[in-house]
Amino acid sequence: MRIVITGGFGFLGRQVADRLLETRTFRGVPIDRLVLADRFVQADAPTAADPLVDIVQGDLTDRLDDLFAEPVDVLIHLASAVSAECEADFDLGMSANVDGTRALLEAARAQSVAGGPTARVVFSSSVAVYGSDPALPLPPVVSESTLPTPRSSYGTQKLVCEQLIADYTRRGFVDGRVTRLMTVSVRPGKPNAAASGFLSCIIREPLAGLPATCPVRPDLRVALASPRRTVEGILRVAEAERGEGPGRLNGGVPVNLPALTVTVAEMLATLRRVAGDAVADLVTIAPDRDVEAIVGSWPAVFDNARADVLGLEADPSFESVVRDYLEDHSDAVVADALLTARPARPAPID
Amino acid sequence: MRIVITGGFGFLGRQVADRLLETRTFRGVPIDRLVLADRFVQADAPTAADPLVDIVQGDLTDRLDDLFAEPVDVLIHLASAVSAECEADFDLGMSANVDGTRALLEAARAQSVAGGPTARVVFSSSVAVYGSDPALPLPPVVSESTLPTPRSSYGTQKLVCEQLIADYTRRGFVDGRVTRLMTVSVRPGKPNAAASGFLSCIIREPLAGLPATCPVRPDLRVALASPRRTVEGILRVAEAERGEGPGRLNGGVPVNLPALTVTVAEMLATLRRVAGDAVADLVTIAPDRDVEAIVGSWPAVFDNARADVLGLEADPSFESVVRDYLEDHSDAVVADALLTARPARPAPID
Repeated sequence: MRIVITGGFGFLGRQVADRLLETRTFRGVPIDRLVLADRFVQADAPTAADPLVDIVQGDLTDRLDDLFAEPVDVLIHLASAVSAECEADFDLGMSANVDGTRALLEAARAQSVAGGPTARVVFSSSVAVYGSDPALPLPPVVSESTLPTPRSSYGTQKLVCEQLIADYTRRGFVDGRVTRLMTVSVRPGKPNAAASGFLSCIIREPLAGLPATCPVRPDLRVALASPRRTVEGILRVAEAERGEGPGRLNGGVPVNLPALTVTVAEMLATLRRVAGDAVADLVTIAPDRDVEAIVGSWPAVFDNARADVLGLEADPSFESVVRDYLEDHSDAVVADALLTARPARPAPID
Repeated sequence: MRIVITGGFGFLGRQVADRLLETRTFRGVPIDRLVLADRFVQADAPTAADPLVDIVQGDLTDRLDDLFAEPVDVLIHLASAVSAECEADFDLGMSANVDGTRALLEAARAQSVAGGPTARVVFSSSVAVYGSDPALPLPPVVSESTLPTPRSSYGTQKLVCEQLIADYTRRGFVDGRVTRLMTVSVRPGKPNAAASGFLSCIIREPLAGLPATCPVRPDLRVALASPRRTVEGILRVAEAERGEGPGRLNGGVPVNLPALTVTVAEMLATLRRVAGDAVADLVTIAPDRDVEAIVGSWPAVFDNARADVLGLEADPSFESVVRDYLEDHSDAVVADALLTARPARPAPID
């Protein structure tokens, strides 16, 4: 069992890799090699030193021969240009998201046509495939049966890839799976160029003692998932067998991962409750039309029946999301915030 | 006003060109040049001799510089690999349909970015974007709000192009319009590699005194449009202004052209009624699973509200479709069939 993760040193890629290296199996089959492919490699990460791990550094399309040097059984394709990048640089998005994915699909197809394994291809798509505008409003509750009408180049590019993957799967070139990721919050680390980045910043930065700007009106409702739930969703969809019944993938290719629906105001109130006024007061509300236009066009309420069948559940509350973050990233939290947070309700210890 | 038609010597391209050369205007504006681009050029066609017409022969992607040598105001993109071709040769379909369309969009974008006109790009998509399979049935009535789930590479490729055109339009690179063509029947000329080709063959060939095979069970319902209605639909969508109210394009980019819903049995009964037993008996029913799978997955009943607003109507009956064909292609009909047909209800003369 050889597994390739693109974006393997990205935020989600690292966590997916960590999970696989914990169990060292995929669908109960021992993992022989775990290939982490990325443009930027963190050579000193503990993962990089694992004897199961190979590292392939560089642009995906330049390194296809290395990725497919040995048969690829599972390809978890997380590498992507993000939403605001794709809006700012159309060519970058088309190249990284559409051409890059197509090159991977073609390599997997070539492997299959040459008599090798039919790769299980797991693609990370996005809630951004859904967009609404006044002439084409989304229904109040969105499911995989809802017509995606993206209002961003990023969402368009993800949708195009979804459809190619569905066709490659129908033709038997790959065994494709698509997880539509909700906005992940709270993401650790540095701000990125995603339009939704503030949904992590407004929690992460104040907890680190830093100021943060909230570029939308607080009554905006958003659909969020914690990193833990997101990684769980990717791996559940990756490992599931097709067919009917609990735990199986049935129906169309995309699966909307479960979402917790909250308002930005509720997020900020949770921060205040958990970490206190001094931390919460570090957030300034300063609506930005461009960000509001993108994020506000994404649906906030989902019917997650397809994910339910796989046993996937949304985070129970935003407080649980914040407490997960405090537990997983205590090094990125200033002591004051932790001191305020901890007594209120101790985070469970795994 | 310079208009480019790709597939300009194809069946629909010729008819769109003929209509434009009749009025010699587009949206009331005089046409200066009408460029007919095609891999195969019929140099002795009357159209080719028209002083307004320029001919560009060759593969689209090799001739972009010629197509855009002068500013393109309107690009009617009809060139395409057809459904059965794309199923038989995946690479051909991806190259001709996806890469070809993308190259045109990029050329139009470059023109706009360089300060030239924002081209009105009219793309011929297809009912084949819709497909159903047991796990994902289509609703009984399909509209532009229905989630397309193509069950063919051709349908996938058309859908991918639709989404790129929507995004290029949203970004202001082009003014894109998408007409989803129903199965066109009765197509004149030779059989082509479209899976739906038999829906013309079973009428056209017997009327020419030739045998024909019907590869589906006669109770299959199909959504058809005559060539006249199809060309009318393409030009109406091309010429319409955006906005609300009658005659205007509103809402999303694609417009499903109106369809007449008939069973294959009704088509054959109409042929028998119009042209007599000797002609109708030339059709042999011999179901072919592959063709049934593709054509049977296309929806047969539509809610055409978006086309209604543009004043577009379906053919009133299949008899009207057959009589249009007899009138437009009397040279391709054997005298016996005509003699039987004419007295029943004379075709109107324009």
